[in-house]
Amino acid sequence: VSSNRFGGLLGPTSGAAEVDRELDDRALLAAMLRFEAALARAQARVGLLPEAAAVAIAAACVSEYYDVDDLGRRSAGTGAPVAPLTRDLVARVPEDVRQWVHHGATTQDVMDTALMLLADRATGLIDARLAAAAEASAELARRHRDTPMVARTVGQHALPTTFGLRAAGWLTALDAARTRLAAARSGLAVQFGGAAGTLAALGEAGTAVLGPFAEELGLTVPILPWHTDRGRVHELAGALAAATATLGKIATDVVLGSQQEVGELAEPTGGASSAMPHKRNPIASVQVIAAARRTPGLVATLLAAGSPENERAAGSWQAEWEPLRDLLHLTGGAAARIAEVLAGLRVRPRRMRANLDRTGGAILAERVAARLAPTLGRAAADDLVAELTRTAAERAVPLREVLRADDRVDLTAQDIDAALDPATYLGRAGEFVDRALSAHQRPGGQA
Amino acid sequence: VSSNRFGGLLGPTSGAAEVDRELDDRALLAAMLRFEAALARAQARVGLLPEAAAVAIAAACVSEYYDVDDLGRRSAGTGAPVAPLTRDLVARVPEDVRQWVHHGATTQDVMDTALMLLADRATGLIDARLAAAAEASAELARRHRDTPMVARTVGQHALPTTFGLRAAGWLTALDAARTRLAAARSGLAVQFGGAAGTLAALGEAGTAVLGPFAEELGLTVPILPWHTDRGRVHELAGALAAATATLGKIATDVVLGSQQEVGELAEPTGGASSAMPHKRNPIASVQVIAAARRTPGLVATLLAAGSPENERAAGSWQAEWEPLRDLLHLTGGAAARIAEVLAGLRVRPRRMRANLDRTGGAILAERVAARLAPTLGRAAADDLVAELTRTAAERAVPLREVLRADDRVDLTAQDIDAALDPATYLGRAGEFVDRALSAHQRPGGQA
Amino acid sequence: VSSNRFGGLLGPTSGAAEVDRELDDRALLAAMLRFEAALARAQARVGLLPEAAAVAIAAACVSEYYDVDDLGRRSAGTGAPVAPLTRDLVARVPEDVRQWVHHGATTQDVMDTALMLLADRATGLIDARLAAAAEASAELARRHRDTPMVARTVGQHALPTTFGLRAAGWLTALDAARTRLAAARSGLAVQFGGAAGTLAALGEAGTAVLGPFAEELGLTVPILPWHTDRGRVHELAGALAAATATLGKIATDVVLGSQQEVGELAEPTGGASSAMPHKRNPIASVQVIAAARRTPGLVATLLAAGSPENERAAGSWQAEWEPLRDLLHLTGGAAARIAEVLAGLRVRPRRMRANLDRTGGAILAERVAARLAPTLGRAAADDLVAELTRTAAERAVPLREVLRADDRVDLTAQDIDAALDPATYLGRAGEFVDRALSAHQRPGGQA
Amino acid sequence: VSSNRFGGLLGPTSGAAEVDRELDDRALLAAMLRFEAALARAQARVGLLPEAAAVAIAAACVSEYYDVDDLGRRSAGTGAPVAPLTRDLVARVPEDVRQWVHHGATTQDVMDTALMLLADRATGLIDARLAAAAEASAELARRHRDTPMVARTVGQHALPTTFGLRAAGWLTALDAARTRLAAARSGLAVQFGGAAGTLAALGEAGTAVLGPFAEELGLTVPILPWHTDRGRVHELAGALAAATATLGKIATDVVLGSQQEVGELAEPTGGASSAMPHKRNPIASVQVIAAARRTPGLVATLLAAGSPENERAAGSWQAEWEPLRDLLHLTGGAAARIAEVLAGLRVRPRRMRANLDRTGGAILAERVAARLAPTLGRAAADDLVAELTRTAAERAVPLREVLRADDRVDLTAQDIDAALDPATYLGRAGEFVDRALSAHQRPGGQA
Repeated sequence: VSSNRFGGLLGPTSGAAEVDRELDDRALLAAMLRFEAALARAQARVGLLPEAAAVAIAAACVSEYYDVDDLGRRSAGTGAPVAPLTRDLVARVPEDVRQWVHHGATTQDVMDTALMLLADRATGLIDARLAAAAEASAELARRHRDTPMVARTVGQHALPTTFGLRAAGWLTALDAARTRLAAARSGLAVQFGGAAGTLAALGEAGTAVLGPFAEELGLTVPILPWHTDRGRVHELAGALAAATATLGKIATDVVLGSQQEVGELAEPTGGASSAMPHKRNPIASVQVIAAARRTPGLVATLLAAGSPENERAAGSWQAEWEPLRDLLHLTGGAAARIAEVLAGLRVRPRRMRANLDRTGGAILAERVAARLAPTLGRAAADDLVAELTRTAAERAVPLREVLRADDRVDLTAQDIDAALDPATYLGRAGEFVDRALSAHQRPGGQA
Repeated sequence: VSSNRFGGLLGPTSGAAEVDRELDDRALLAAMLRFEAALARAQARVGLLPEAAAVAIAAACVSEYYDVDDLGRRSAGTGAPVAPLTRDLVARVPEDVRQWVHHGATTQDVMDTALMLLADRATGLIDARLAAAAEASAELARRHRDTPMVARTVGQHALPTTFGLRAAGWLTALDAARTRLAAARSGLAVQFGGAAGTLAALGEAGTAVLGPFAEELGLTVPILPWHTDRGRVHELAGALAAATATLGKIATDVVLGSQQEVGELAEPTGGASSAMPHKRNPIASVQVIAAARRTPGLVATLLAAGSPENERAAGSWQAEWEPLRDLLHLTGGAAARIAEVLAGLRVRPRRMRANLDRTGGAILAERVAARLAPTLGRAAADDLVAELTRTAAERAVPLREVLRADDRVDLTAQDIDAALDPATYLGRAGEFVDRALSAHQRPGGQA
Repeated sequence: VSSNRFGGLLGPTSGAAEVDRELDDRALLAAMLRFEAALARAQARVGLLPEAAAVAIAAACVSEYYDVDDLGRRSAGTGAPVAPLTRDLVARVPEDVRQWVHHGATTQDVMDTALMLLADRATGLIDARLAAAAEASAELARRHRDTPMVARTVGQHALPTTFGLRAAGWLTALDAARTRLAAARSGLAVQFGGAAGTLAALGEAGTAVLGPFAEELGLTVPILPWHTDRGRVHELAGALAAATATLGKIATDVVLGSQQEVGELAEPTGGASSAMPHKRNPIASVQVIAAARRTPGLVATLLAAGSPENERAAGSWQAEWEPLRDLLHLTGGAAARIAEVLAGLRVRPRRMRANLDRTGGAILAERVAARLAPTLGRAAADDLVAELTRTAAERAVPLREVLRADDRVDLTAQDIDAALDPATYLGRAGEFVDRALSAHQRPGGQA
Repeated sequence: VSSNRFGGLLGPTSGAAEVDRELDDRALLAAMLRFEAALARAQARVGLLPEAAAVAIAAACVSEYYDVDDLGRRSAGTGAPVAPLTRDLVARVPEDVRQWVHHGATTQDVMDTALMLLADRATGLIDARLAAAAEASAELARRHRDTPMVARTVGQHALPTTFGLRAAGWLTALDAARTRLAAARSGLAVQFGGAAGTLAALGEAGTAVLGPFAEELGLTVPILPWHTDRGRVHELAGALAAATATLGKIATDVVLGSQQEVGELAEPTGGASSAMPHKRNPIASVQVIAAARRTPGLVATLLAAGSPENERAAGSWQAEWEPLRDLLHLTGGAAARIAEVLAGLRVRPRRMRANLDRTGGAILAERVAARLAPTLGRAAADDLVAELTRTAAERAVPLREVLRADDRVDLTAQDIDAALDPATYLGRAGEFVDRALSAHQRPGGQA
């Protein structure tokens, strides 16, 4: 096993193995070699070099031929692993082919394109996991379309809602995250400009290479070399971090819903605690929350490296390599975990109902006030209900009883009971769920 | 004058007055009142409240009627200026209309929608400034399509390029930034869900209000209330910061090009230095660089607040208000400054040419090596030229002379002169400029 | 009222009025004038200028004489409000004194020193609020030294602890935050180097001014002008953000403890919800959480501006002004709120006890396993207890009963009851509280 | 070779091998085992477990016995590598010792302490590199105490200074960074609280273990378990990032000074460019700039994870592991590179002098104005000199000649020459250098 940023003791706790396989150092090396092979092939296609040279170069572009750790060590002195790899690659091809290796390319061409290739594959896998999470959310929204639960705002019981609407919120946010990620993916482009961004080494044929080259790699053709225009990196980073933020929201909801006092939700398989056999730690969600805490700083780093001076910068683009890979790693890990958590999420409608009743109707005070407003006026109705709600809380008596006992409340017992029934005060929750499900069916998702 | 985050001693040094006018506290208050007026009108349109009530409410929604600083002070205890404003607004309408003020809305509905309204107007102004900067870049690219200058990479002379290509790079990045900002703007949506996001207070008609409400305000209708889905905020923040990063790149290029030793560029009007009458400080560019240093942290803040728990979060969305306004303020200031700098940028082709010649042809060593490669082999040619380039540098003699004097260099004096002429080694710079200008003409800009 | 970053509609929701008074634009103007007056006085003390000139300059250094908003507007073109202010100041002194105004100083000297003066006063006020919060934590730790509550880890019930230990944790963290803030405050230094950092305009006497100047302002004398050494700014920023993080931890604990299902804690006065009269929103804590979300990005900004090039940077130090003031503002607001919340915090030992019992003894499984370990071996004991804990959870039966009924558990009923009594499994909680209180008494606080 | 975050293709370009060896996954595993061995020994010392058990446990705590990658894979399900390692460790000790492995400890105890151990060793190595960089700066300051160069502010020539003063600025900043790092290092403490932070599993003897335990590991004894008080992590992170910011400032100065047009500085060994044999890229400095761009976001991440709720957080501390290690890695790499760059920095006094003369005396306009002020009045003198400086710039004529030719300038030719001699307008540069060198000698460094 060779060195790898995403393996070791800690990598697996934040990443997903299948995504990390497309991001690790061997994948990066392979992507650098794909650059060299594709460049040679594309140049051969437009007649810049002999077909045989392209074949020979491509034959040497096999990642197993090269030693990742040795390349890394040798790159400390050049600032990037490109020069050592080019040297090794040159040594592997016949004498007369050597002049065509890395022809007209510069270090940043290789690094940028290789990172785009990594991003392309990793975001494909990430998107599949986001899609699975969205699908699981949709299923939860459908199944619990009419399951009442208490809506909590600033940590406090507010009004009734449904668990279906909560899940629909996850769904809509995930769908939107996918739409934005797709936009960012469509901007992933090859980088090829040569030392000065002019393709001067290739003569007249320079720009003709761009199309075939991008085609070889399945990436977009940029208008210009983008050595100092990092917008596509920023768009990708933003889309990844926004997706992770949404995944972090879902994970936070699961952790809060799993508190023993709340008991509404549980991860499919809680992690065993070494010291406490009774605990069912929401391990996957915790790891997602950790990921969501790490992504904003990485985006800030990429943006702070976003103003590269002159034709190629002294320090900016070098600062992108690890943060961009870390972002892909963390988003991949978070998406995979949430997809699993949602697919097996344990939902407890009975606990939801019990929690809804916990305030003895007080969360429906708004509705009682609305019913009293026509006779008392809105302000007076609000004041009266607020007073009685406080009374109920202080005496630890259900609001229902206080309302019945107070002469100023001109409502029958049935009226009061009806007003305090949470299951009939769900507003447009069901309709909103339907809207989310219907938008989810549409291609593109988000309105 | 009332209190204002973007005025005072320091606000004007980072912002642009016309943009800040749409962001300041009076603008925020006006946007909050636009929310209340539009909500009443939309509810009247679907029959939820009497037309006359909507008229009365709208008549009270005049920002001059309210005291910004007093509202601010009173909001410290409630956590947002919505409750105090609602109270004042209720007091301004006739008794029988009071129940319809802020009907069915919650604090976050007002704040989110008001910020979207601010963002909508401010980004309109920002986009106009980005467009002006792009236009000025296009003009520079056209005019200097064939003006040779030295390409600098990691701070060092690399190869020749043209100033036109540099400007085309600015242009393409600005066009792309505008495309991304437009995408973000299209996502700016009304927020209206009520306390639990269910619109429960409105009965059956709840969702019917959404369309007319959004129409009143010129914003998008969301699928669901987005109290805990901050994707649109993240997309906007990302687009703003990416734009500022590009503006910061241009500003950095101007500052570096303005160094006395370089002398290729100058701001139209350098700032006077208090202590040093001879200095022409690139003040506008400096302010843009400062802005570009501040935006990444603001985006990180918005992303870090991006996982709001439950139905409405305890602390997350409150953390968005000032950073989002600061982002709009800084991007506005940076865009306005760069538009002015580029419109009047002083470009000095003679200094560019002089700097190009400064290394006595050494920057064209690549080309000489390419001409020697067919006979010597690429590696040997590279080695020989590297050796002679070092010799030239050590002896402080032009590379031309060293090449002529060395027997191993099998090139005539004319060949050597031709190889070392930077004006004939510009590669596809001109074609790239044409590509950028042509893409700029196309609607949508970026390929 | 003149323009002010910390007033308006939103400033009061994140700041504390008394702290913000030392940070607002009038305070900044006053600090800039204190610089000019103190500089003149110090220069007079070492004989660089006539005593009468210093008196005349000091007499003109009255902030009310100048128009904040006008200075701000005029500074947009110079990049800082120093040149306009110097101009106005010169105009206010007699003709023969004018040459001594701002003598030998540069813009950054004024801005850096003025910000240090703001920081000095604001951190004094912030420290007093942190001290009050620490005192209130100490009182809570003392009073609840032996109040059992459940310890929650990764959101789940873990083992018993005491509320006193929780409060002691707050105390120790606050004490340490104060120690670090004090260290940062001791580094607040005057800035005075002139245009090139050489004090060239002052002749031989240059450095002799430093001591008296710093004395006038109550700041430290630096070894060198620190125009490009921002370490003291970073240390201050780090100390502020770390303090706010600790305040955010306390606020989060209050919000989680205030959930209706938990009910262990409540803010002294919950905010009234406009729509929901029954809700007691933990408004102060929510605002503190919002502050804690905003500070990390500000520190990142200050650090990202921390590598100023050459003798004075193009964009770096200009990027510090607002973020540093925002950090002081947010920390001040957070410290003031937590001091108030802790001083009146409602603690409900009965709810703590009820929650502790909620898992029917399962949280003491660790202790039962320890008692079985000598006979069964540790692994077997752990496995058995884990199995029985699961059984209890599945059957929704207290662990106590399951233990009693299982033959493999070789413990008497009394042994089982004793093992499951949380009040006797508090470990060294009490001793830890005593350690924290004792460290708190010591000058310097932290061990 | 096993997986390692800091090896592979890219790790060596940002880190220093000797520092990374103390940070890599094998070092982390070794630190976790040092925790377990030291805990057992400390518990034996206070009689909590048999001496023989401690010996047996320590004998099994050899990192080579365990498989890093396998532990990593198994930890994905538990969220940390502690449980798998404990399991493997238990399996390696005799049956009767097993109950004493990891006795009374919780996962966070191990991870926190292990990271403190890593930080302790890595910061020791980092400090040695900072010390070497400071020493090299001191040598440069001494050697170039009186070497004139132009001071550049906002990218423009300002006034004369000396290269010695520039180097003294680096020195003072590095000394201060070391002082702050030492303070942070003194706070590195053991973590040991058990599942609830009460040490309940250890009975009465719990706290007695702390002293011996800390002694075994060479770390500080905390007042309380600090599971949710991350102040020491923040202080360390702040000190590291501030140090890297200073290193980044030095690197930026080297890159700017190495521009062909400036030519005042060069790295000892510039990196060879693959495509351009003539280029001497300041590779080490570029890597340091890249590091300085990455550290602020990492600090923001650590601060954003700084408010851990309850007794142990769901996601916060897990988010610290990689960013803290990355910070140590980047600071180590940056410090090692700057130490090398400064030790061999090529300084070119002749180019400094030539650049100083480039503006034909205009940078001394301030001094000419001061000499004219007594007769003309300050404002008139400033205006006149500004006018003549502009004239000189427009006509591309040295200021000297314009001054001599203008009747309003009442100075002899000698006076003018003397006023325009940069070598006699260095202010207190020499004295400042002496102050810095003298402070550097003092223990503790910074005043």
